[in-house]
Amino acid sequence: MANDDLNLDALFIGDKAENGDLYKDLLDHMVTEHLEWRKNYMVQDAPLISHDDQVSESFKATEQKMKSVLQELSDRLQASSIPWHSPRYWGQMNSETLMPSLLAYSYAMLWNGNNVAYESSPATSQMEEEVGHDFACLFGFDKGWGHIVADGSLANLEGLWYARNIKSLPLAMKEVKPELVADKTDWQLLNMSVSDIMDCLEQCDEEMIDRIKEKSARAGGDLSKLGKWIVPQTKHYSWLKAADIIGIGLDQVIAVPVDDHYHMDVSALEEIIRSLTDQHIPILGVVAVVGSTEEGAIDYVDKIADLRDTLKQEGIDFYFHVDAAYGGYARSLVLDSHNDVIPYDHLKEMHYEYHVFQENKEYLSQDVYNALVHISRADSVTVDPHKMGYVPYAAGGIAIRDIRMRNVISYFATYVFEKGTEAPALLGAYILEGSKAGATAASVWVAHHVLPLNITGYGKLIGQSIEAANRFYDFLKTLDFTINGVHIIAHPLVTPDFNIVDWAFNIENNQNIDDMNRLNHTFFDETSIYTGSAYDKEFLTSHTDFAKPDYGDSPLHFVESCGFTGEEWQKAQKVTILRACILTPFMYDKDNFARYAGEIKTAMEKYLTQALQRIQTEQ
Amino acid sequence: MANDDLNLDALFIGDKAENGDLYKDLLDHMVTEHLEWRKNYMVQDAPLISHDDQVSESFKATEQKMKSVLQELSDRLQASSIPWHSPRYWGQMNSETLMPSLLAYSYAMLWNGNNVAYESSPATSQMEEEVGHDFACLFGFDKGWGHIVADGSLANLEGLWYARNIKSLPLAMKEVKPELVADKTDWQLLNMSVSDIMDCLEQCDEEMIDRIKEKSARAGGDLSKLGKWIVPQTKHYSWLKAADIIGIGLDQVIAVPVDDHYHMDVSALEEIIRSLTDQHIPILGVVAVVGSTEEGAIDYVDKIADLRDTLKQEGIDFYFHVDAAYGGYARSLVLDSHNDVIPYDHLKEMHYEYHVFQENKEYLSQDVYNALVHISRADSVTVDPHKMGYVPYAAGGIAIRDIRMRNVISYFATYVFEKGTEAPALLGAYILEGSKAGATAASVWVAHHVLPLNITGYGKLIGQSIEAANRFYDFLKTLDFTINGVHIIAHPLVTPDFNIVDWAFNIENNQNIDDMNRLNHTFFDETSIYTGSAYDKEFLTSHTDFAKPDYGDSPLHFVESCGFTGEEWQKAQKVTILRACILTPFMYDKDNFARYAGEIKTAMEKYLTQALQRIQTEQ
Repeated sequence: MANDDLNLDALFIGDKAENGDLYKDLLDHMVTEHLEWRKNYMVQDAPLISHDDQVSESFKATEQKMKSVLQELSDRLQASSIPWHSPRYWGQMNSETLMPSLLAYSYAMLWNGNNVAYESSPATSQMEEEVGHDFACLFGFDKGWGHIVADGSLANLEGLWYARNIKSLPLAMKEVKPELVADKTDWQLLNMSVSDIMDCLEQCDEEMIDRIKEKSARAGGDLSKLGKWIVPQTKHYSWLKAADIIGIGLDQVIAVPVDDHYHMDVSALEEIIRSLTDQHIPILGVVAVVGSTEEGAIDYVDKIADLRDTLKQEGIDFYFHVDAAYGGYARSLVLDSHNDVIPYDHLKEMHYEYHVFQENKEYLSQDVYNALVHISRADSVTVDPHKMGYVPYAAGGIAIRDIRMRNVISYFATYVFEKGTEAPALLGAYILEGSKAGATAASVWVAHHVLPLNITGYGKLIGQSIEAANRFYDFLKTLDFTINGVHIIAHPLVTPDFNIVDWAFNIENNQNIDDMNRLNHTFFDETSIYTGSAYDKEFLTSHTDFAKPDYGDSPLHFVESCGFTGEEWQKAQKVTILRACILTPFMYDKDNFARYAGEIKTAMEKYLTQALQRIQTEQ
Repeated sequence: MANDDLNLDALFIGDKAENGDLYKDLLDHMVTEHLEWRKNYMVQDAPLISHDDQVSESFKATEQKMKSVLQELSDRLQASSIPWHSPRYWGQMNSETLMPSLLAYSYAMLWNGNNVAYESSPATSQMEEEVGHDFACLFGFDKGWGHIVADGSLANLEGLWYARNIKSLPLAMKEVKPELVADKTDWQLLNMSVSDIMDCLEQCDEEMIDRIKEKSARAGGDLSKLGKWIVPQTKHYSWLKAADIIGIGLDQVIAVPVDDHYHMDVSALEEIIRSLTDQHIPILGVVAVVGSTEEGAIDYVDKIADLRDTLKQEGIDFYFHVDAAYGGYARSLVLDSHNDVIPYDHLKEMHYEYHVFQENKEYLSQDVYNALVHISRADSVTVDPHKMGYVPYAAGGIAIRDIRMRNVISYFATYVFEKGTEAPALLGAYILEGSKAGATAASVWVAHHVLPLNITGYGKLIGQSIEAANRFYDFLKTLDFTINGVHIIAHPLVTPDFNIVDWAFNIENNQNIDDMNRLNHTFFDETSIYTGSAYDKEFLTSHTDFAKPDYGDSPLHFVESCGFTGEEWQKAQKVTILRACILTPFMYDKDNFARYAGEIKTAMEKYLTQALQRIQTEQ
């Protein structure tokens, strides 16, 4: 079979466990292979647990105790888990995960490799090296590198660690070996590009590199001299945390306003940078977000990279990190089966040919396309397999553009790795963590091998989620209810860049944002675990608030579209939004969607009715 | 059955997969429960994957592709994994993991909860809350709290984050609300205890707390004013990394010499502190290690806590973190079935009564006992379930003494948690990570429920590993070989505090440390993946180097016991050590040990012979 005709239905257990038997058979087969492997290591050795022991009373009693604890686990999981395998779930960033990844994790865990040390985990360390290579390829980093991180927030922290330590090197070079940077002022040193810094470092021997590193930001001292760290105003709180932890501090974080489609405003970014550099304050780095957690908004990565090129001509440079924890895998949509970038002109036709979308439509706007393509110009990228990689938690990831960057943050601990050892990756030397599950690497590796990171694999899977999102968006656009004479209209936030669809319900002619917020918040509660078991809910969603301290006036356009005035927005300063991250691999299908649209509408009507009643009772 | 008679053989798959059928049966049973749960959610909904689809060519082809990728995974894991289920493995910190934890992980993963957000994972978030409570209980923190962390290095980083931000608060209070600390000098502010700081903060309302936090170390600026971070000289490299990442910098890290048993020298610590404070340099914090990664050494936690109490009388105070990533679970050994501390006088008798040790001996020295008991006086503790918790990777953990400390590092992101929501733990607000596997919590929760964290449960399991270590140590003490006329003697490093046994082989009368190092390094290579498949090795171990930059002269005593002079040590400056972390749950047994002692000796002789040959050939 050619890769271009994968049937993704075979890769999930299914909303009704349609492939459950397949899952069980494969799991049993694999576990048996592990057990045989155990038995056959030093086949001459006799077992240490005797049959007599196994039939003893204490053994049976312990077995029974284990079973009752496991039963309690099962009971609790069944009673209080979220049914996101179902087409009725339109909430958080969750859905079914890939069957092969679940199997790989369950299997590789039996070997319990620790990928920090090659010696402990030769098989899975090698897989992580390959996965890192996959990440680098996905983002077009020919000389790049990558690895799995415990999660996206830590990958962001690692990106900031790279930025901080790399950008501090030129001043350290000046201190340790001035001739390396002899003709440069401090301002110029603070505005060197990552590649230039790496080129400089390459001229030094290992001992000199160590001495320079000793004087870099890792030494401590006042890190604010490195300048400002710039993030979109809709900044994920992980960026505040990261700036806190890394020691540059929240005082160095600058937020750039977003436009009414929740993209970082690149003109505003330019203004901020120019105003800072006019005051001789350097820019440590800029973060673009590819797939914001609330809106799925994809920043103009290409325009930010262009701005960097322009500023570079003026002697201003900064580290550029793309936080694509959510959207990173979507770059698969713009890569052909040879992993080459597809020109935008051919995208629609290629997508149709490879069954990326069921409809002969191009759901990716040119802006989104440009952003995805130009991720290759970033210095580092966060990408989470446990989000759009459809791999179980916890699997984040990072890719860097230039493998030489690794040496800036490296440490070597003798007992886990010897500097110079020819292992595929002395991973512990280059990362935040000191231990990491080999099973995670196995799980991601298997996913990447079943689904190539281009339109033949992940592109198709993610295409399905985007198509489902567009169907849901279209559904919302014409959705309204009349409940006991009250006319309620659904207002979608924006055309989705990606696969998150936000909306709010409003009562026709309502002029009070607080009232709308109450309606949506109460509606959410009715669909949620806060008012009963998730297992009984016929529709589940999530919610968020767009509040002025975080969003500025970017929600104004939306609240106006819901029928409110600008004055009302200034009064309320907050709008509550319902939010569907649409990862389901099934609802792209026209018939499936049509089948559930009615069910969802009925369920929404039920929960809106309950919400109206509750609001009335509470008033 | 009473908890005091667990048969631990029932809790592991076994070196020859003796309990393999039990594992498979339970796994199958549990997976079926999950599949039924899926099916029965909204039982009226029809499946989305049709039978026609399942028998289609594309489905079969995709299924086949998945199978072949999984087969490749299996082949690679079998070819290149480490057989640490076997009694022939005496190397890294690995062994079999608990069967109930493996089952719980495989099972809970099917629900794929994300424990950062309660809303995504009600069942497993609740379990993590309970596990955190278990950690706090284990360390005697009555008002404490804890949670699972991706690994021990990150838990250490979190401990340092607590220290840095908490110790910075008094100066921030002075800036924001001077009357809170009106009568104090800056020196006094930098020497306030954690409890005093928390008490002060408790007097403020939420808005004031936020304003104070804004001026704390999270703001950035020069963090060196907070003082020095003091760690044992044998410092795990994770402490250097942590100081780098957190921004206080390596320049603020001070190493304290260790004694000839590799414990932090408490007199030297006192001297260092006094010399710094005499210069008016504050002490940010001190780290004691409970179970060093190379030697299993357990620092004198009690004496360090006493020193802190003494210095407090003189106006000097510091944050106290215990890095018990490795040894933390061993505190189970000093807790009775009601989780109360057992007096040392009763320890031997209680251990024998509860079958903690097979021999009627007390393997825990009074020093180790004192250290474990007094962990309750630390401000925070790192503890890794994936080490002595026998839970699969990756599961680290942290406990704090005072739950109020959480608020100092907290953040709130609207879409995952609302400040004030009555969820069991708004975990994402208080931790480093932004996503974390619910399955990890399930895995640890199950382990803690099968094995209570006292002598009836984990105490017994860890007792077995300590007893096995002592048997191995005794074995080494009298071990020698005559190979082609060359007499080789094993020299164990020190009586084990815990369950790591280090040793070196030396040729009788050899006066050259480099030669001994070569012998041991080559011996290690012969037992390792570097000279062939681990599956073919009849004995496996690990190795490390004690080098002067890290260890000072603490190895002198050992090299002298191997027959070298002090001058020779000063010349060589490094000794290569063989290292066995003895986690096996089977070799505590006298008969099992006796059965394998001969096998191990034969294998050692084989690899020593090969090593001697290789050294000769290479010369």
